[in-house]
Amino acid sequence: MEEIYLDNSATTRVCESAAENALYAMRECYGNPSSLYSLGLNAERLIERTRRAVAQKLHCRPEEIVFTGCGTESNNTAVFGAARSLQKRGRRIVTTAVEHPSVARPMDQLEKEGFEVIRLPVDREGKVPPEEIFKAVTKDTILVSMMLVNNETGAIQPVSTAAEAIKKAGAPALLHCDAVQAFGKLPIDLKKLGVDLLSASGHKLHAPKGVGILYKSEKAHIQPLLLGGGQEKGFRSGTESVPLIAALGGAISELPEESVGLQNMQKLWNYAKDALLKLPGVEINSPDDCLPYLINISLTGYRSETLLHFLEADGIFVSSGSACSKGKLSGVLSAMGLPAARVDSALRISFSRYNKTEDIDKLCESLERATKRLKKRG
Amino acid sequence: MEEIYLDNSATTRVCESAAENALYAMRECYGNPSSLYSLGLNAERLIERTRRAVAQKLHCRPEEIVFTGCGTESNNTAVFGAARSLQKRGRRIVTTAVEHPSVARPMDQLEKEGFEVIRLPVDREGKVPPEEIFKAVTKDTILVSMMLVNNETGAIQPVSTAAEAIKKAGAPALLHCDAVQAFGKLPIDLKKLGVDLLSASGHKLHAPKGVGILYKSEKAHIQPLLLGGGQEKGFRSGTESVPLIAALGGAISELPEESVGLQNMQKLWNYAKDALLKLPGVEINSPDDCLPYLINISLTGYRSETLLHFLEADGIFVSSGSACSKGKLSGVLSAMGLPAARVDSALRISFSRYNKTEDIDKLCESLERATKRLKKRG
Repeated sequence: MEEIYLDNSATTRVCESAAENALYAMRECYGNPSSLYSLGLNAERLIERTRRAVAQKLHCRPEEIVFTGCGTESNNTAVFGAARSLQKRGRRIVTTAVEHPSVARPMDQLEKEGFEVIRLPVDREGKVPPEEIFKAVTKDTILVSMMLVNNETGAIQPVSTAAEAIKKAGAPALLHCDAVQAFGKLPIDLKKLGVDLLSASGHKLHAPKGVGILYKSEKAHIQPLLLGGGQEKGFRSGTESVPLIAALGGAISELPEESVGLQNMQKLWNYAKDALLKLPGVEINSPDDCLPYLINISLTGYRSETLLHFLEADGIFVSSGSACSKGKLSGVLSAMGLPAARVDSALRISFSRYNKTEDIDKLCESLERATKRLKKRG
Repeated sequence: MEEIYLDNSATTRVCESAAENALYAMRECYGNPSSLYSLGLNAERLIERTRRAVAQKLHCRPEEIVFTGCGTESNNTAVFGAARSLQKRGRRIVTTAVEHPSVARPMDQLEKEGFEVIRLPVDREGKVPPEEIFKAVTKDTILVSMMLVNNETGAIQPVSTAAEAIKKAGAPALLHCDAVQAFGKLPIDLKKLGVDLLSASGHKLHAPKGVGILYKSEKAHIQPLLLGGGQEKGFRSGTESVPLIAALGGAISELPEESVGLQNMQKLWNYAKDALLKLPGVEINSPDDCLPYLINISLTGYRSETLLHFLEADGIFVSSGSACSKGKLSGVLSAMGLPAARVDSALRISFSRYNKTEDIDKLCESLERATKRLKKRG
């Protein structure tokens, strides 16, 4: 049976350039990048090549890119590092109610340590209202952390508004943005966004799992999370994963221009929305102007997990909520004010450049069969 | 020119099983291990297979093994986690003067935070005298961190004595052991060692860079370092690097029994010691009973870096000190009380199962040529 993978917001298939680069680094370029001789320098060169590719995507200087072990490490480093480095200037932190657990759990921890954490609500479309941001950011705010694209709905958050709010309040705050779902998909202009710190992850864009990215603006002075040999200019100790960083470079080289990718994806998204809405009972939870790489739907009356397993039997992979919440009820959809039954029946369908309209057709056929069969049972 | 790689304490060549496992995971098993469907479960299965292999090597339960992004992350997690979790029971921490930076720098940080950090001295052989341990561990000690094998000299530390000292003092201390240079080489009996936490790293045993191991005994309750999606039973959030964890499993499957490996390595070590001592001016800095995977020598009068580059011109790779100190003077050899000129001319030669006696012959020839030429110049 052919596999139809529609869970690309959870993780992606590793592309050929990425796999080949990893293999090359493992077989031919196994030196320690910190070693002083040629074998080490060759490994370092692979790392620097990827660093330049990431910097080019983000329109920043290569020196502002740090490689980590995963998106979670990037987010933890940014949030903990900013809070602990700026705590003498204030104790107030502003974030949103719909962040990924790798931002939300560090926030809980900081709250336990005595920081004041403000979690901004979202509207029915899953977006943070700009006026809420201006209200929340005060002159003693030291950190604002807001994701660029929500991992469950694709809603795009007003990150640049947070930058404005910081300026307006005259706050010493650093602005961190979890761009794990956005990097490589949405054009990111760091200057326009006004962020000081930005996180991304390799395995969401066809690189292997195990490599993360942290953009750290030159003016952002924060404590590192990992201490030791002083790799990554002292900011992230630990021997660099040369194979995975090289693989990330390969994956980036295969990415289409963001604008081209977006155009293609928007067509697929529109096709999916139309097709899904033809199924009886389908409601769309993603806003119309979401990142078109994912669409969140509900089929109220049918539990997500049940549908998920029906689809799986047809070789179709989607998810209920995010992979990282492992089956728990979605906090994001609840925060949007959706009724529990609708939250309980949510499916996230997420695309990559490897998906075709036929995949959507098969998904819809399978969903239709599933609901018919479940209705009979009921 | 044939490459002669004698810097295996810095990092190792990736073995074929490891590379193949990584490739399989990247190409065939790219699901998110947290996903609820088969593609995710297959990825999880690869992780669990490696977890069992590591547990078997350490004679512990698979549930006590946590995968991290590197040895540095394992060490940081153990040291910070133990200190912060036990700080209500005491503020005293005992470690040694010869730890790897990934333990030493976190200790510096804890000291800044108000912990009392005792750094045990070493004798002329680089070993911590047992009586010093008993003196240092008091009943309010909350953490003892001692490496098993020193990364620069191969000296084996009396870790089990630290366990005895903790018991004798009736201290609440957890015992952490950085076993990055020991795992897979020295048989490790966790019960005999008496450790609660132990760190290891994949890339020192022919797995790729980017995967670390932390053994955490069931009775050791410490705070995690990375917070988020709750992977690794909540102890290490972040999507697991399935390819690198699978590769680690492959590397472990290729390891010889520790006792067999040690026997072979001891022969090579003896051969190297004899051959090196025939060169005029060579002094051995490693103790005779060190782990025979590495030998540290000095050629007083010749700077390490100069020799290193002479050797490199002959295709031979060794290091001055450790890779992680990137050319800085060795703190380990200084702590042993060696004169500065001897420290300044140290070379670390480290072996793997891929090395042969011919490699040693070529190293000695090259060293002899180098010293002759440098003498002429001088």
